[in-house]
Amino acid sequence: MTNAAQSAGLPLQIAITTGEPAGVGPELTAQALAGAATHWPGAQFTVLGDAALLAERARAVGVDWNALLADGKRVRMQHQPLGVPVQAGKLDAANGRYVLDLLDSAIDGAVAGAFDAIVTAPLQKSTINDAGVPFTGHTEYLAERTHTPRVVMMLAGSGKRPLRVALATTHLPLKDVSAALSVEGIVETLRIIDHDLRHHFGLPAPRILVTGLNPHAGENGYLGREEIEIITPALKLANEQGIDAPGPYPADTLFQPRYLEQADCVLAMFHDQGLPVLKYATFGEGINITLGLPIIRTSVDHGTALDLAGTGRADAGSLIAAIDTAVSMAQHRRAG
Amino acid sequence: MTNAAQSAGLPLQIAITTGEPAGVGPELTAQALAGAATHWPGAQFTVLGDAALLAERARAVGVDWNALLADGKRVRMQHQPLGVPVQAGKLDAANGRYVLDLLDSAIDGAVAGAFDAIVTAPLQKSTINDAGVPFTGHTEYLAERTHTPRVVMMLAGSGKRPLRVALATTHLPLKDVSAALSVEGIVETLRIIDHDLRHHFGLPAPRILVTGLNPHAGENGYLGREEIEIITPALKLANEQGIDAPGPYPADTLFQPRYLEQADCVLAMFHDQGLPVLKYATFGEGINITLGLPIIRTSVDHGTALDLAGTGRADAGSLIAAIDTAVSMAQHRRAG
Repeated sequence: MTNAAQSAGLPLQIAITTGEPAGVGPELTAQALAGAATHWPGAQFTVLGDAALLAERARAVGVDWNALLADGKRVRMQHQPLGVPVQAGKLDAANGRYVLDLLDSAIDGAVAGAFDAIVTAPLQKSTINDAGVPFTGHTEYLAERTHTPRVVMMLAGSGKRPLRVALATTHLPLKDVSAALSVEGIVETLRIIDHDLRHHFGLPAPRILVTGLNPHAGENGYLGREEIEIITPALKLANEQGIDAPGPYPADTLFQPRYLEQADCVLAMFHDQGLPVLKYATFGEGINITLGLPIIRTSVDHGTALDLAGTGRADAGSLIAAIDTAVSMAQHRRAG
Repeated sequence: MTNAAQSAGLPLQIAITTGEPAGVGPELTAQALAGAATHWPGAQFTVLGDAALLAERARAVGVDWNALLADGKRVRMQHQPLGVPVQAGKLDAANGRYVLDLLDSAIDGAVAGAFDAIVTAPLQKSTINDAGVPFTGHTEYLAERTHTPRVVMMLAGSGKRPLRVALATTHLPLKDVSAALSVEGIVETLRIIDHDLRHHFGLPAPRILVTGLNPHAGENGYLGREEIEIITPALKLANEQGIDAPGPYPADTLFQPRYLEQADCVLAMFHDQGLPVLKYATFGEGINITLGLPIIRTSVDHGTALDLAGTGRADAGSLIAAIDTAVSMAQHRRAG
């Protein structure tokens, strides 16, 4: 592997996919990169998107895009032409292929070692699906294209000891969650989290607190048996593999500051058990990280915000946090 | 009904059940009531429990209990003898009947109009069950003893615009939640919340934001159909009855400050969707309120903390908040 990560001393190479062209992705990219020289002095950025679109949206939000690109070093544009011209806020399926092409270029570049990490701005699933390509989400697409059998979705805040919440199951109807849990699945999920926290987050002894599935973690089987039959045996196996993952804890006990202070990550059993508190706590500056991939990928945790596109009123906080984390993860991987 | 609530001008009568005698209930009651004269000048308190136990635990935490009881007005003791002597931290099933007797006295007194509200300190379910009485929880017991077919569990923080989270289902295995939802059940739950927020919380036009059941509120049926088949029809019916309850919203969108600011209450579909964020946000000062009863009842949202009993290290914050809310609810009911 001739990975850029092995070239210590050279600047980190970060790719940013600008996502849905009718959404806020292009302008947030311009806003975030306006501060690149001071925020991320050790990184170079490759922006994937339509060059004219980027210039136009940068102008709309008051960013001097040409000056940013001028020296061709800190920020460079990898031009990919739009399918059809686009207006802020107006979706057009004729640009579905364009959005996927950006993603493919970034993934392929990262796999080939040209990029140390990729950061993805939001896309609109319907634009891609309406273009005739079945698409369920960034995370699933990344797993498929990199031939990764299991990935883990983790959301995180920022700061010195950020709240991090990973999910044992993701986008499933609630009534299917119980049947989707297995001892092997939970062990493998913990193994991925433990590995990536060590190698991409610089945590030499990560501690992962694990929730139960049922209210009060099942109250000794009185409110459900998955804790006894699935989660506890999985934690025992994980422990034998050297993974520090105590639990299962009642979710409403665990998500209190005095417990969270002891955790590098919480593994929640399902989407709405873990993400409301994460989003409440991160005030719109949460980010989404895909663990278990052969490449580093972070993302905003918000959507395309079509109603704000082109107005400059969207907040670049989540994208800046996603870039921060991608840079930090790439540094840690390079270091060790 | 010769309810104390109708006797405007007289002090509010608040009953406090001191709960499990081996737990922190007795000492927290003493600590909370030490500030009664300044905190709740318009209220009189009846403490239900063993008089000698209360005196002992008050002494252990540095409260001059005899002085509090001295004038027989602000705080009075309704003595109920323990079944057997008790040591802090040591459960004894021989005191299970005692704990239930406290509760029965408080409920019966409130139903008869002697009390405007009851506040319950934590009990230990196992003490009661081990005494041979089937008991699933305060809330269910209150509903049964007052012959109330449906009650609603609501947890709340404190402050000017407290976060309030009510639950459509409570203590069920997660896999049974979907089947427990019905159009009629959700409409009735909303009707109870709307009624009690108007009449016991002084909110003339309460707004209740409602979550979906599935991730992303089902994404138009793609991630589950309960939103389409149950929740949306229920909200339409509730709306026709004059209840302001928009939704269903994705839980991880709804529980963000900018949405919560527009809400008097959130109705979550199940326990771990609503309570982790509530407990995270309230930092151990959350309280539990049973809506839909013919009487007013609030409670701490923590357990008996057996390891802290008798030490004075338990925090009376939740009990003080529960008393605050009970007093405020009783005032509103009396006023309207």
